[in-house]
Amino acid sequence: MGKFIVIGERIHCISPIIREAMATRNPEPILKRAKLQLDAGADYLDVNIGPAESDGEDLMKWAVTTIQSAFNNVPLALDTTNRKAIEAGISVYNRSKGKPIVNSADAGDRIENVDLAAANDAIVIALCSKAGVPADNDERMMYCQELLERGMEQGMEAEDMWFDPLFLVAKGMQDKQLDVLEAIRMFAQDMGLNTTGGLSNVSNGMPKEIRPIMDSAMVAMAMQAGLTSAIANPCDRRLMETIKSCDIIKNNTLYADSYLDL
Amino acid sequence: MGKFIVIGERIHCISPIIREAMATRNPEPILKRAKLQLDAGADYLDVNIGPAESDGEDLMKWAVTTIQSAFNNVPLALDTTNRKAIEAGISVYNRSKGKPIVNSADAGDRIENVDLAAANDAIVIALCSKAGVPADNDERMMYCQELLERGMEQGMEAEDMWFDPLFLVAKGMQDKQLDVLEAIRMFAQDMGLNTTGGLSNVSNGMPKEIRPIMDSAMVAMAMQAGLTSAIANPCDRRLMETIKSCDIIKNNTLYADSYLDL
Repeated sequence: MGKFIVIGERIHCISPIIREAMATRNPEPILKRAKLQLDAGADYLDVNIGPAESDGEDLMKWAVTTIQSAFNNVPLALDTTNRKAIEAGISVYNRSKGKPIVNSADAGDRIENVDLAAANDAIVIALCSKAGVPADNDERMMYCQELLERGMEQGMEAEDMWFDPLFLVAKGMQDKQLDVLEAIRMFAQDMGLNTTGGLSNVSNGMPKEIRPIMDSAMVAMAMQAGLTSAIANPCDRRLMETIKSCDIIKNNTLYADSYLDL
Repeated sequence: MGKFIVIGERIHCISPIIREAMATRNPEPILKRAKLQLDAGADYLDVNIGPAESDGEDLMKWAVTTIQSAFNNVPLALDTTNRKAIEAGISVYNRSKGKPIVNSADAGDRIENVDLAAANDAIVIALCSKAGVPADNDERMMYCQELLERGMEQGMEAEDMWFDPLFLVAKGMQDKQLDVLEAIRMFAQDMGLNTTGGLSNVSNGMPKEIRPIMDSAMVAMAMQAGLTSAIANPCDRRLMETIKSCDIIKNNTLYADSYLDL
């Protein structure tokens, strides 16, 4: 099995600095965050431009070329609800370091993003929800099947569909956490699928000092269940230490005394 | 499910200070380590007196009464290869806060410690090995069955047998770590058994600063597999934070913003 894939989440228009940089096409703040994440061990970088309804195509093209040309064609996840913006981003994307990731399809209004990924030989994050939070794992499995069938019909390789169980906030949905882990186990171990998700949802609303502790506990449990990737903050040192240690335990990477620095 | 049970490992005659205190019947160093571990959140304290062939019975009696009288009858794990010393310890043990733990039986020379636990209404740590490290999970399961049958024959409740898969050193046996986790999953999830083990074996020989990181990753993965207890160092803050966070994720304890301090 390959090592765990970290998709860095910090180029996100919810950040005022990034939003401003995107609006003014100022590369500096974006490249700074890209470098921080790559130095910390991110494998992919997520580029979230928001809905970007007016100029999404131009913005995504600019972001993709700006980041890839500065960092040796680092692979990217293109993250927006604007489908044309994703297509525009892929049209200028250099895939020498890895396929683009379409972030994301779901089993509802966004199921056509599976087709988009298939048509462009891209990876797709397949969110196992339709309208809101899945009620239980029967729903998650139903949506997983719908998404998987859609992908197969469109000629995708199953390995290019990364299924997202939808991580839930523990503070408020504490009794649902084992469901999420069991969904990952079913996707990964029963079905042999790749999996990913927005890990930091789990600790949303918790005190700032607790979040790395909770996220680290969750990622280790999820890696034991079979999680192969996460959209997460690679600058969270504790989280990255945990991921690297779980990769050692899973024999995905070879142990060396210096493994935390590799 | 109940919260994870931490058996504090630090009253151990391998420590020169503890060895000396045991030899001279000096309570201070032992009570100091007991307090440190209890303040850090230990549920049980392991009392390892070594082989103690000459005066084991007297020593274990002294240790049990010294620790229990100082700390409100804290429950203890009696840890020695000297069976008479375990029996002597149990004879003076106050079980108002929990049954004594016999540490440990195995499927080989020490299988009679199952009988000892049964005869004394004690918990037994049932090490799934016979002579040395089990070669694979077929062996672990065979020894588990042998120990379980022995306990049933002797009238034990299955919940009083805590099965130990034998955690292995990752540095040297990296490719065996997933076997250990799978053994825990089989014991816990397929068979509904309680489990425990000497967690810190995993990071044995690693640089000192890495050990809490590796142990924390392993305990979270093991808790996802179903581990219900560990013999560990409760003074390892990162480890305890991880255990408490996994207990939240498993819904074993209720979330509060202050959960790490509880």
